[in-house]
Parts: sequence; C-alpha cells; structure tokens
Amino acid sequence: MTGFAYGSLGFKDLAVTLNGAVLLVLINRAKQKNMFELNLAQELIRIFDVADKDDRVRAVVLSAEATAPAFCSGANITGGWDNLLTAEEKKEGFAAHRDGGGKVAMAIYHCRKLTVVAVNGHAAGVGCTALQLPFDIRFAWKDAKIIFPFVRRGIVPEATSTYLLPRLIGQSRATSVLLAGSVLSPTSRHLDGLYHTVLPTREEVLPAALAFAKELAENTSMVSVAYAKGLIQHPGASQEENHIHDSMAMAMFSKSRDAREGTTAFFERHAPVFKDTLSENLPSSYPWWRSVDIRHRTSKL
Amino acid sequence: MTGFAYGSLGFKDLAVTLNGAVLLVLINRAKQKNMFELNLAQELIRIFDVADKDDRVRAVVLSAEATAPAFCSGANITGGWDNLLTAEEKKEGFAAHRDGGGKVAMAIYHCRKLTVVAVNGHAAGVGCTALQLPFDIRFAWKDAKIIFPFVRRGIVPEATSTYLLPRLIGQSRATSVLLAGSVLSPTSRHLDGLYHTVLPTREEVLPAALAFAKELAENTSMVSVAYAKGLIQHPGASQEENHIHDSMAMAMFSKSRDAREGTTAFFERHAPVFKDTLSENLPSSYPWWRSVDIRHRTSKL
Amino acid sequence: MTGFAYGSLGFKDLAVTLNGAVLLVLINRAKQKNMFELNLAQELIRIFDVADKDDRVRAVVLSAEATAPAFCSGANITGGWDNLLTAEEKKEGFAAHRDGGGKVAMAIYHCRKLTVVAVNGHAAGVGCTALQLPFDIRFAWKDAKIIFPFVRRGIVPEATSTYLLPRLIGQSRATSVLLAGSVLSPTSRHLDGLYHTVLPTREEVLPAALAFAKELAENTSMVSVAYAKGLIQHPGASQEENHIHDSMAMAMFSKSRDAREGTTAFFERHAPVFKDTLSENLPSSYPWWRSVDIRHRTSKL
Repeated sequence: MTGFAYGSLGFKDLAVTLNGAVLLVLINRAKQKNMFELNLAQELIRIFDVADKDDRVRAVVLSAEATAPAFCSGANITGGWDNLLTAEEKKEGFAAHRDGGGKVAMAIYHCRKLTVVAVNGHAAGVGCTALQLPFDIRFAWKDAKIIFPFVRRGIVPEATSTYLLPRLIGQSRATSVLLAGSVLSPTSRHLDGLYHTVLPTREEVLPAALAFAKELAENTSMVSVAYAKGLIQHPGASQEENHIHDSMAMAMFSKSRDAREGTTAFFERHAPVFKDTLSENLPSSYPWWRSVDIRHRTSKL
Repeated sequence: MTGFAYGSLGFKDLAVTLNGAVLLVLINRAKQKNMFELNLAQELIRIFDVADKDDRVRAVVLSAEATAPAFCSGANITGGWDNLLTAEEKKEGFAAHRDGGGKVAMAIYHCRKLTVVAVNGHAAGVGCTALQLPFDIRFAWKDAKIIFPFVRRGIVPEATSTYLLPRLIGQSRATSVLLAGSVLSPTSRHLDGLYHTVLPTREEVLPAALAFAKELAENTSMVSVAYAKGLIQHPGASQEENHIHDSMAMAMFSKSRDAREGTTAFFERHAPVFKDTLSENLPSSYPWWRSVDIRHRTSKL
Repeated sequence: MTGFAYGSLGFKDLAVTLNGAVLLVLINRAKQKNMFELNLAQELIRIFDVADKDDRVRAVVLSAEATAPAFCSGANITGGWDNLLTAEEKKEGFAAHRDGGGKVAMAIYHCRKLTVVAVNGHAAGVGCTALQLPFDIRFAWKDAKIIFPFVRRGIVPEATSTYLLPRLIGQSRATSVLLAGSVLSPTSRHLDGLYHTVLPTREEVLPAALAFAKELAENTSMVSVAYAKGLIQHPGASQEENHIHDSMAMAMFSKSRDAREGTTAFFERHAPVFKDTLSENLPSSYPWWRSVDIRHRTSKL
C-alpha cells in the first residue's frame, strides 16, 4: 500500500493531506458545526485504517478549521437517538447495535502510528469522547468548551469513554466529568492530565500540534512507536506478564536495523534516520493479546 | 418503595432528610467525635440501600454537623482491634470476618444514585476510607486534617481503600498516602484529583455540596446516572468489551422516554424534566458483570 | 538472617550501609556516569532480595553520589543492544530472553520493605524505568533531566515501565512520556504525581529522602507496610475481591502485637515501638495472589 494519493479516497467530510510523514486530517463540515454523522464516522474509520497500513505515515493529526464554529459539536440528533440503529439492527434487537462513536474510537486507538488531536474549537459529546480520548496526545485551545453532557440528555457516555477516561486521568476525575456533565475548560483541574499542551488562541493549536508531530515523525522509529503503543494498551495483567512481553520485545528489537541506527546516531551525535516499517519489520511477537470480536453479524469488515 | 417517611427509619446515629430529590444524611454523633461504631455502620449501610431503591431520591449527600469536633475521627478502638470480630467470626476463624468499613464502602459504591460527600471537618482512618473513597464526588474544607494512619497503628488500610484509592488518583499518589500515613490537607499535591471542590471554611462545605447535588438532581436522568456509574465501575476488561456494553446501552436508551426528553429539551432550550425511574425503566441489560459473593455464611442479607 | 555485615556482600558497584533500620544503597560508578551494566543489575537484585529478608531493615533508600555526573545515565550500549542477550538466550531464541532492567524492577517492586529512591542527578532510560518506577516513593532534584528515550533509539520502553508508569500516573501522561521521549524535569506537568518531593539542589535530595525514610522506619509497623504493599499491588479484580482480602488482613492483624502497640501508643500519646517482623509475624494469608513464572529455563534462582 504505497504511493497512492490521499485525494483519491474521495472523502466528503474530511480534508486529508500527507505532509512528509505526517498525515493531516481536517474535519470539513464547518457549515454543520462539524456535527458527527454516519458519513463522517465512516470516513474517520477509513482514514485511520489507511494511516495504520501506509508505511509513509508516521503520525496522524486530526483537527478542524480554526474558523469553524466548533471542533465538533456532537452527534446530529435532530432525528432522535433511535436513528442510530440501522434497519438490520432494529430487526435483530438491541444486542446487535454497534455504536458509531465506539467504532471510530477503536479505529483511532488501534491505529499503530502516533496519533495527535488538535482541539481548536468547542467540543461536545462524541466530539469529546470518540474524537479525543483514543488519541495518544491531545492539544487544545484554552477557551474551548469541553462538554460530556450524556447524563443531562438522558443517555449514557458512549464511544468507549467509560473505558478510556478513567484509565487516562483516574477514576476520581473521570467520574466527576462523566456524571456532572459540566461545561469545562481544557485547563480545568477536573481534566488535569488529559491535555498535553494548551494554547492561548485557536489559531495556534494546529500549528503547535503539527510541529510536535513532525518532530516525532522525524526522530522516532515507526516500529518502536507501534510496539510501545501495544505495550501501553496491553501491558498484561501483572508485572510478571509485562516482563515476559517487554523482554521478548527487547530481544527482537536488539537485532533490528532501527535499534542499530538509534545507537549509532546517539553515539555520533546526529539525528537518526529510521527506515524500518510496519509492513516489513514489525516483530512477529506482535500482537500478543486476545480481543473480543465486536463485529456485527452481517459486518463485511 | 415510595412515600414512606425517612423519620420512620428510627436512626440513632444519622439524621436523614429528603429535600426534593436530594437525600441529606448527617452523622449525628458529635459528642463521640463522630467515631465509627457498629451501629453507625449498620445505619449507613441501611440508608444507602434505601436511597438506592427509593425512586424519589436522585442524589445522596453525606456530611456531619459543621460544629462537630470532626467529620469522622475514625473507628472506636478503645476496646482494641479484636473487638471488630463477632462471636460467630471468632468461632469460625479469620476467613469468616467481613470488615465493617468495607461493608459500608460497598453499600455506598453500589448505590446507583449520585453520591456526594461533604467533608466539613477532620477525618481519620475509616473516616477517610469508607466515608470518602466510595463516593462519586468529594467536597472538603481546606483545613480538614486528612489522615490514613493505618501503618502507624500496626494494622492495614481497610474498607477496600487499597482497591479504590489507586484507581481514583493513581498508584503513585495512593502508595505515598497509604504508606506514609501523614496528616494531609485536601489541597495537598499528594491528594491531587481526589477532591472535586475545596472550600475555605467549614460552614461553606455542606451548602456547596447540596447546591451541586440539587442542580444535578434536577437536570440529569436517574437512569443515565445509574447506568453510567455501572459502566465506570465495570467497564469491561478491554476497549472491545466496553464497546459491547456501551453499544447495548445506547441502543436501549435510544428508545427511552428520558432520551426523548433530553433531546427535546436541548433543541427547545429549556430544562429537561426526566421522569424515568430505576424501578421502572432501568434497561434489562443492567447489570452485566459478575461479583464475588462476599456474604458471611450466616448473613441474613 | 540477622547480624551479618553488609560490607561482607563484596559489592563492586554499590556502597551499602545500614543506618538504624534504614538501608542506604548508593550507586558507586561515578566514573562510568553510573551506567547500567550486568554487574550493577545483579548487585541491585541481590541487595533488594537481602533487604526484603533482613528483619533489621524497615526501609531502603537508593541514590547516587551527588557529585556523580548522573544519577544513572542509562544502559551501557556501547556494544549494541544485542549484547543484552546471553549465549544461552541466543541459542534458544528470543522467547528465552529476560530483560535485565525488568529483573531489577521486579526485585525492587517485590521488596516488602518501604522503598525510596533519591534521584539526585540526571536519569535516562533504565535510570528512569527500573531505577525509579518500582519504588514506593520518589524524591528528585528539580533540575534533574528525566529522559525516557526508547522510541528515539529504535527500541521499546522496558523494565516493565509500560505496566508501571500508566498505573502510577495514568495512561494519558504515561503515553505522552513514553511516546515523546522528551527531556523532562521532575516538575513537568507531564510527570505530575510521580515525584513525592522535589528539592531545589542536588545536595538536598538524599538527606531529605533519608529523613523521610527514617521517620517512617521508626513509626510504622514492618508487617503493616509489607501487607499494605501487597494489597496495593494485588488489590483483587473487584471491590468485592478486595473486601475479602482486606477483611482477612484486618482479622489477623486485630490480634497482633503491633496492632496492640499501635493502639496503646495512640491512646497514651507516645511513639509506638513496633517489634513484629516479617520472618516471625507476617500473617499466613500473605501472599494471596498468583504470579506468572518468569524464570528462564536454566535459571538457578
């Protein structure tokens, strides 16, 4: 999977450009306040799947245009919440439903590249859950309104947010955020630890996130990043189990071209040039964990 | 379970009043420095069980009178620690014991309503563990002395605090708090993240907590809060498992009266009036987790 | 195991002295910038194993000389990363490898005494992972450079750091630290919660850590500390499971000499004199957890 043009993907709700090794993904629905709908969800899933497999991509940055009314104003619920069930799901009953925000969150969380989100506007609901929590790194505008309003709308926090948020910032803060549904600032102490960098103006958020991603894309090993993400997300159930996993990894990386390059560059005091790729050089010990199969019965994926 | 008067419960160590949808529970043992004893424990377990089942209650606030010498000065150990074993437990041996603080902590943690504690005085031992950690939200007076003294008394942190505290604020802070046993302030960086709001005077703590609880009781769905608490406490072992759980929830909530009300009120820009109750409208997919049976052999519960 | 002199252990890379109940362990390789090598690893494993078993020791403090160029400048990789495999491991293949940093991290994490690290100089790689994360308490110099450079060297975070760091400070901060590999200060918000105390000068770090350890060694029960560490590290998979564990502990401690001493001293308002030891008085319910066997096939341990 190399050499194809991102323009050829024919996206409607995303504007995607490859800048060096950084894939920039912009939500392109300013007129609709960047509301979350089925097509946007499908394009997000597709782009993070593609970014995962394209060896040219080392980092993905998601953002919105800084002139849009919001980074993402949440799901489009003008038709009510039961619009979220497909005809197939309605026929099969509740257990058949697969939440769209959750599918997006999994596509982002499973993307083996460095993922960065630049929250350069207000964010509500799925714009806080699926579009922020599964990322490795979060940048935000200090005056962005951050709203997890679920219990105030008569529904529940979705998009795997009850799994991700307590792990990311601890259950004390996560509980207060998810049960109070207040309008928060990225600098609120209730969100402490969630945002890597908070910028004073909307305009500064994306450039700062891009510069951060670019520096890491240039100076980190793609294989190291993917494997480290795997270890963070699937550390094993105990220190001993983790020791088995990271020992195996260290043994396999010890012979890698990127590890040799990293050592040489370090001693020669120059920037490394990492060439190993996921499609060619990911150790065979990856992945080591088991997953619940979450596909819908009629899923073609 | 409706319409009964809370005064009829005949409590000795608690003063309980229902104010709208907020149940206020005051520890009523100022003369004994609000020390923790068997009867107080039993009344606490009972009131959180009742609050869980009473559809009139949307939030529970626990506090003490602001004139009491302490919010809770810990367990009454004037008779020594082995007083904590019942005659039955002594006969059966150590494995039969069920820690009283732990039973209270479980009753609070399992209460499906919003729970708020207003720590308006000093707190030590079980006054920090059972009476603070299992709550959703913690308010405190900035000069309250917070003491987890267990290793300085020759015993161990109890009341499921070694489960709750590391999850709430991370294992680094939790370890330092539980192994050092220092006298801490709610504003101490070692407790960072534990307290939602810290007030400058004792007198302000309960009113602030009540106002917070009242606002949430009026504007959140009781069923959403209960289900969200379930998802936070039992997220599943992986993102995929969580996706199965919250997808099912979203499907079932999508057809609920509260979700319709939440959407309508949002679009019509007025406050929602949520009517769904736990006894009538909690989705049948709740609960979805398994529990260890912790009853004592002769338990009548 | 009593009465032997620590000098008799014949260490080359560590200087070890027993001061009252505090064992001070100094890394003694200033000329090599306190680089991590096989012999240092073996001596560290040995000293934490001995400290675990020696009833005279209540706390262990690890540090380096404040005049050394670094607290620990990382692993010696002048021979390349594949030097980390033994001849035996090379013959047997990757799955046979047991990471040296991980073995040290487990020896420290499993030591049942209070463990404190005094980071009084720069730290990189394994000097941040194995030599800091498994400790109960971390002190540091505010200008120490803290570097987790793994993905910038073409390898992965090791020494069970992907297990420990997310648990210690949450997955949001841990991910940013492990994937960015930046040069951080102990006061960086990305490390918030990791360090118990940060001192303005290098010279103050060890004395502060020693005073802290000494106070705790004098005023805490050795058996309480060991059991509390066990509960923190192995809380059980649910609140109910934790309740079973800490109830059993409370029942057994209720009859202990240290619990009686703690209660008496508390009521008589004097410092306690705890006499119970791990070799004589650790309750038989310890340990209660299962572990993966991580020994290498030919391990003699």
